[in-house]
Amino acid sequence: MEHKRNIYLQMKTLKEARAILFERFPPGGVLLSEAVSVPDAVGRVLAEPIFAELSSPNFHSAAMDGIAAKAENTFGASEASPKELAVGEDAFFVNTGHVMPANTDAVIMIEYVNVTDDDRAVIEAPAFPWQNVRKMGEDIVATELLFPQNHVVTSYCIGALLAGGIFKVAVRKKPKVLIIPTGSELVDWRETAPEALEPGQVFETNSFVLGKLVESYGGEFVRHETLMDDHDQIKRTIDRAVSDDFDMVLILGGSSAGSEDYAKSVIDALGEVLVHGVTIMPGKPILIGSINSKPVFGIPGYPVSAIIAFEQFVGPLITRMLEKPETTRPTAQVEPTRKIASKLGVEEFVRVKLGAVGGKIVATSLPRGAGCITTITEADGIIRIPNHIEGLNMHEPVTAELLRPMSAVNNTIVVVGSHDNTLDILSDQIRAVHINVVLSSSHVGSMGGLMAIKKGVCHVAGSHLLDTEDGTYNISYIKKYLSDIRVRLVHLVLRDQGLIVPRENPKKIKGIEALVREDITFINRQAGSGTRILLDYRLQQLGINPAKVNGYENEEFTHMSVAVGVLSGTADVGLGIYAAAKALNLDFIPVVTEQYDLVIPEAHFESQNIQILLETLHSAEFRKRVEALGGYSTAKTGKIII
Amino acid sequence: MEHKRNIYLQMKTLKEARAILFERFPPGGVLLSEAVSVPDAVGRVLAEPIFAELSSPNFHSAAMDGIAAKAENTFGASEASPKELAVGEDAFFVNTGHVMPANTDAVIMIEYVNVTDDDRAVIEAPAFPWQNVRKMGEDIVATELLFPQNHVVTSYCIGALLAGGIFKVAVRKKPKVLIIPTGSELVDWRETAPEALEPGQVFETNSFVLGKLVESYGGEFVRHETLMDDHDQIKRTIDRAVSDDFDMVLILGGSSAGSEDYAKSVIDALGEVLVHGVTIMPGKPILIGSINSKPVFGIPGYPVSAIIAFEQFVGPLITRMLEKPETTRPTAQVEPTRKIASKLGVEEFVRVKLGAVGGKIVATSLPRGAGCITTITEADGIIRIPNHIEGLNMHEPVTAELLRPMSAVNNTIVVVGSHDNTLDILSDQIRAVHINVVLSSSHVGSMGGLMAIKKGVCHVAGSHLLDTEDGTYNISYIKKYLSDIRVRLVHLVLRDQGLIVPRENPKKIKGIEALVREDITFINRQAGSGTRILLDYRLQQLGINPAKVNGYENEEFTHMSVAVGVLSGTADVGLGIYAAAKALNLDFIPVVTEQYDLVIPEAHFESQNIQILLETLHSAEFRKRVEALGGYSTAKTGKIII
Repeated sequence: MEHKRNIYLQMKTLKEARAILFERFPPGGVLLSEAVSVPDAVGRVLAEPIFAELSSPNFHSAAMDGIAAKAENTFGASEASPKELAVGEDAFFVNTGHVMPANTDAVIMIEYVNVTDDDRAVIEAPAFPWQNVRKMGEDIVATELLFPQNHVVTSYCIGALLAGGIFKVAVRKKPKVLIIPTGSELVDWRETAPEALEPGQVFETNSFVLGKLVESYGGEFVRHETLMDDHDQIKRTIDRAVSDDFDMVLILGGSSAGSEDYAKSVIDALGEVLVHGVTIMPGKPILIGSINSKPVFGIPGYPVSAIIAFEQFVGPLITRMLEKPETTRPTAQVEPTRKIASKLGVEEFVRVKLGAVGGKIVATSLPRGAGCITTITEADGIIRIPNHIEGLNMHEPVTAELLRPMSAVNNTIVVVGSHDNTLDILSDQIRAVHINVVLSSSHVGSMGGLMAIKKGVCHVAGSHLLDTEDGTYNISYIKKYLSDIRVRLVHLVLRDQGLIVPRENPKKIKGIEALVREDITFINRQAGSGTRILLDYRLQQLGINPAKVNGYENEEFTHMSVAVGVLSGTADVGLGIYAAAKALNLDFIPVVTEQYDLVIPEAHFESQNIQILLETLHSAEFRKRVEALGGYSTAKTGKIII
Repeated sequence: MEHKRNIYLQMKTLKEARAILFERFPPGGVLLSEAVSVPDAVGRVLAEPIFAELSSPNFHSAAMDGIAAKAENTFGASEASPKELAVGEDAFFVNTGHVMPANTDAVIMIEYVNVTDDDRAVIEAPAFPWQNVRKMGEDIVATELLFPQNHVVTSYCIGALLAGGIFKVAVRKKPKVLIIPTGSELVDWRETAPEALEPGQVFETNSFVLGKLVESYGGEFVRHETLMDDHDQIKRTIDRAVSDDFDMVLILGGSSAGSEDYAKSVIDALGEVLVHGVTIMPGKPILIGSINSKPVFGIPGYPVSAIIAFEQFVGPLITRMLEKPETTRPTAQVEPTRKIASKLGVEEFVRVKLGAVGGKIVATSLPRGAGCITTITEADGIIRIPNHIEGLNMHEPVTAELLRPMSAVNNTIVVVGSHDNTLDILSDQIRAVHINVVLSSSHVGSMGGLMAIKKGVCHVAGSHLLDTEDGTYNISYIKKYLSDIRVRLVHLVLRDQGLIVPRENPKKIKGIEALVREDITFINRQAGSGTRILLDYRLQQLGINPAKVNGYENEEFTHMSVAVGVLSGTADVGLGIYAAAKALNLDFIPVVTEQYDLVIPEAHFESQNIQILLETLHSAEFRKRVEALGGYSTAKTGKIII
């Protein structure tokens, strides 16, 4: 087994790499233009300035329904001394849009005309010249510039172009991008069912995401079939592509420096590598090259890396080829809800959830892994931490690029705290009825939720903290930790907690006592979670030293992650809710029925969105869906405890 | 001739009318759903919540290239005491994405491994469990909610859906809108050339604009052929449409209360009129009805009225039918450059040009006429003046909805002042080379330009003010009116001013002296324009009393409008530049060669955009294009005068 590895050329900063790319492929002259019918030109870029061929209006026309007359014939008319005009001679009935009859220059609105008989119209006020008349050329004068070259045609523009007698326009051809997914592990989802996927196989998704992004930037794409990690085949394919009519080639995967990463050596062999590696995260292993004077990119395989690399390089290059102005995302000032660390020397693109809480926009960072597509699909914004900054402090105002409009952020109910599957149902059920309202939840454990309330960075905290003294839930913790904040406590559900074990319970686990067995590996929840507190309480009751539990130190953040750990064989058993076991078809040994509540500061309680949340808790549809999950009781759902 | 007229039902405010519409046609239940392939779902609205079918990753996988090992086998490794692992036994070479071999739970990056021979790997540091491993379900856990119902699918979502094993999704069908243009004056541009248009005929444009707007809101449209103003035919067509599979019908034109406005009586006859007339401007004559439980709109015929009516009612209704959150345009605080009057009791949608000047965003209102499509195609934003406000004062901060991104507004060179055709060329030429830079010009005459400089609301003023004492241009005016502002004066062009007369000069006009003739009607420029000052100076030299000039009181704001006045027979002669006469194929009698300059405050002079403007003045391409217009000399173009 050979382990040939590439070495990154000297890494570039984002700014340097963009400068190299844009200098090598300057705008203009690359793309041809094509003539399209005006309505089809919306979103396209004008390749030439457009001058009107026709004036609009093309004649003096009535701007009101009424009679057209010559203003000077009306001078002197008054209530005391009305003037009579002869219809068909010095007065003519016109409707809005009609040509002004010869020798008329004013329209008197029909409301101000007394039509005595079909021949006479009487007016009681004079008209001034050109009143209620749209003069020829009022809107557009033939030969005038309608739109400069490089203007992007909008729906509105259609009206001006057609009215100006322009029916076809020359627009820049769409840059044609060939997208070549590479990777022996990749499987085409159009040919394989999810259940037929073998270990090590992965559905190829990036080409479809990037293809749609190409379209959104104004290009068009062709997807090549997936290539194996085969240097020669990749090379042959790229070679063909650059002599074809493609304006750009994206090689997906294999852009890094691994032993099966062939993008660099292929570009080296066929052309020139301009940049290999940029100090951004995600997106670092991007590769920029030139073959046959065409840009060829090696795009990293992790989905978020691929997206960031695309949006920083490929998208802007398409924009420049089209000679469109570069657009930037709208931004907002936000406050991180916790410290966000960042490496010096790397520009980080931190995906964040946003919400408007207490007069400010709070930003909760999502997991950083470039392999997790959900860290960008769930994000409301991106905070960029520049190379020279080591991280951001909690509450330190910072700029976020918005992925969703501020109106959506303002309509988001921010839930932080313990994880429970019913929060998904709540989110969906609210959305079903109140289309503008979004519920977004972050899972940091029950104590984390209370701390979020304390810090004023959420609207709602989900919590199931057991007071081991008196068996109550949450109340004593609220008294202790939130003594200075007035909050309400609303009951969400009762739920079964228990041991999650593989199907048919192969290790014959019967209860918590079994966790000390040598042959058993446990998977734990993080400190501060209600489930962890429950476990520790039970261990204490049973006199078991946690150090005796194999895997006690393996922490997960959600019930579902614990269940996955059991499903995948990482562990033999975990403590979690029934719904998680059921969802993954695992077995479940009940330990306790516990109470899961929502903590809501009084400051937010009367807000419209919280009232919507409470209404939803009381809805039959919500309760029905929760009960269907199994392991839940909604008998007291929605009850206000304090 | 009969003059049947409808009467407006009681007019509603915008808020009332929207409430009536949205209450009558609530979201949900109307639209069916359809299953589409995931990549085709971008921009569509999910009809159901989507739960993952597959975890991602679906197995524990290596997150780095390196060796996979069991962490506990590495404990104790250090530089002083390296550990040796047996390849194939307790160490396995893996690349990013590979399945973790059985009994391994950590990956050591290849950079930190010494491969002594093919069988042995030596490490100098311990690994911790799960380091550099992507755990099963790290991104997506099967059965978890991926997206709630009513979520709008983005390009990013494709990645999460496919990775989650979802290949098809149920999305709401697109609302199908029938658009019926009505009006006997309307002509189909696809069948008639501009030069074949007869007086009184107009190209039908609204259906194409609104059709594209329907698409942008997520609907689809069918355009019906244009109907004449024929009550029965319109009625028959609507009747058929509402029993067909259309979700909505738009009748374009005829929504007002004129004698040939049939929309109301048709809706009355077939169903129910809910609203007729809304106190908005433009857009007042909108008609909202219900036939066969389907929304039927009468859309006003003026293009801007049609757009505003659409965007306030039809678009939001489509959004609601789709159960999408309503999006609002981004806004900015702006300052009007002059007083903007508004009628009490009417909500006005004032189209404005925006520019960033001296640290604030200035807003110059465009003409108000609803018939002028260019008042919206040229607009950067819309200021809404509510019913209870009589208008806005100059400099009074107000919110504008943005039609273009702020980045474009920030890159706009704001030119205010005298009109000259070379400004169009300058605008186009700058845009050709500097794709992010826009030049926007407003025509308020030379004095208006100087006042705009004084008020700090523009970057550049175009001016050709003749000092009749010494024959110089602009300098003495700057000294007098801009004594407290340091400005630079840059020469743009020398240009021929003269009398514009119809082709072949039918009235045999030879010079300014002719303007006193009884048989001649003049068309003038507005007070404060350089051309008006020139005229008055010449009349004075000739001892002519302006009161003796027929039409002296008819004022136009641009050379082109004067030329159109002559072309259309409104006047026999006007004073203007050669380029305007030539553009409309009129005759021209030279009077004087004058100097047109650009006044630029020193505060802006060194800015990047002004430097781009100056560069462009010096470019051969710009000069060539200006000379080609005729009547211009660019001999000293770009010269800095002061």
